[in-house]
Amino acid sequence: MKSDGNIPAPAVRRLSLYLRQLEVLWGDDRQKVSSRELGNALRLTDSQIRKDLAYFGQFGQAGVGYDIAELTTNIRKILGTDRTWNVLLVGAGNLGSALSAYRGFAKKGFRLVAVFDSDRKKVGKPLASNPDLIVQHIDELESQVKQREIHLAINAVPADAAQQIAHRLVKAGVKGLFNFAPVNLDVDSDVAVSSVDLAVQLEQLSFQVSMTQSFVESEKTRRRRKKQ
Amino acid sequence: MKSDGNIPAPAVRRLSLYLRQLEVLWGDDRQKVSSRELGNALRLTDSQIRKDLAYFGQFGQAGVGYDIAELTTNIRKILGTDRTWNVLLVGAGNLGSALSAYRGFAKKGFRLVAVFDSDRKKVGKPLASNPDLIVQHIDELESQVKQREIHLAINAVPADAAQQIAHRLVKAGVKGLFNFAPVNLDVDSDVAVSSVDLAVQLEQLSFQVSMTQSFVESEKTRRRRKKQ
Repeated sequence: MKSDGNIPAPAVRRLSLYLRQLEVLWGDDRQKVSSRELGNALRLTDSQIRKDLAYFGQFGQAGVGYDIAELTTNIRKILGTDRTWNVLLVGAGNLGSALSAYRGFAKKGFRLVAVFDSDRKKVGKPLASNPDLIVQHIDELESQVKQREIHLAINAVPADAAQQIAHRLVKAGVKGLFNFAPVNLDVDSDVAVSSVDLAVQLEQLSFQVSMTQSFVESEKTRRRRKKQ
Repeated sequence: MKSDGNIPAPAVRRLSLYLRQLEVLWGDDRQKVSSRELGNALRLTDSQIRKDLAYFGQFGQAGVGYDIAELTTNIRKILGTDRTWNVLLVGAGNLGSALSAYRGFAKKGFRLVAVFDSDRKKVGKPLASNPDLIVQHIDELESQVKQREIHLAINAVPADAAQQIAHRLVKAGVKGLFNFAPVNLDVDSDVAVSSVDLAVQLEQLSFQVSMTQSFVESEKTRRRRKKQ
């Protein structure tokens, strides 16, 4: 695998899509797939797929396509999901609880092993959504990161605590942060951050819907004018 | 506001960031802000900010900057969040419940007014996470969309049901879908879709962390070799 650091982020994002589609095909008992077929399923061109994969090595055979099992294994290796990751969660509120119950993580090899909160009323109690997990006090964060070799953390604390928690996580040794707080986290450049701001996503939808509606309105006006 | 449809999606995404930062500044009792200051806070160049805003009209004054209240109002108008949107949720499982309790939506003017599920054991009962909402049976989806003029929907059903639910939502009149199922939804081009695949996001993090670690490892090897 090449790791020259010049791989565009969208290509890496599409690797996840390819993997998802390969898993679907594998579930359908398929053995081979062409870049064209993958492309059709994902609404991408086949040359895009070939170009993306070429960043990581030589896969597939011209005229034959890709061996689904082999490409799946390779993409998992590239994405680092051929192993199990210990993941911790900070914030046992509504969002944190829901995330702890989300089964999609475990399926991909992400094992949630610890949950932290600053609220003493929550500490020592199992999470309702995932009773295997007992909430620990945030003061135990650093020792747990080290003891359990945790490299990934989900940050589901309120906005005003997010930066401070991110700082503590990174200092303790966490290398990747999955951030749900609506703030831009300031961390060292060797720490990976992926952010989901749910309100911003809805805002983007309302923009698109507003645009479409004003389009539709202006279209109607135009047509009415034409008729007159 | 220009609405020629040629506005790049990243510019619209950044509008949300600008709005968030303007709200922070407004909370700090500030009146004016320069594109340079906005840029510094968001790690963007000032010319990027001016270029993005220029897609939507003429804002701010050279040498003076932007009036925070005015720009906030304008961006809200552009994003369609100067009004209240009725939003429905399909899927009253763990993820759906958590989303229903997320306060960030209401703050932006997104009012969750109805929750649907196909599980008769859940129907008729309030959501634990948001007792104001009584779960309705999925069969009532279409009539509720019309009666309550709902244009936005959060789709938090399992992967195998997501496409069918999306189809029903769109047919009923929903114009924007916030999709949490790990599938590519196939909908008409006039319907906006925003997807969050939580597992894929973690996968992207594990990729970055793996890359950094293999970088670190190869660096160590290189240095060791140099020393020898």
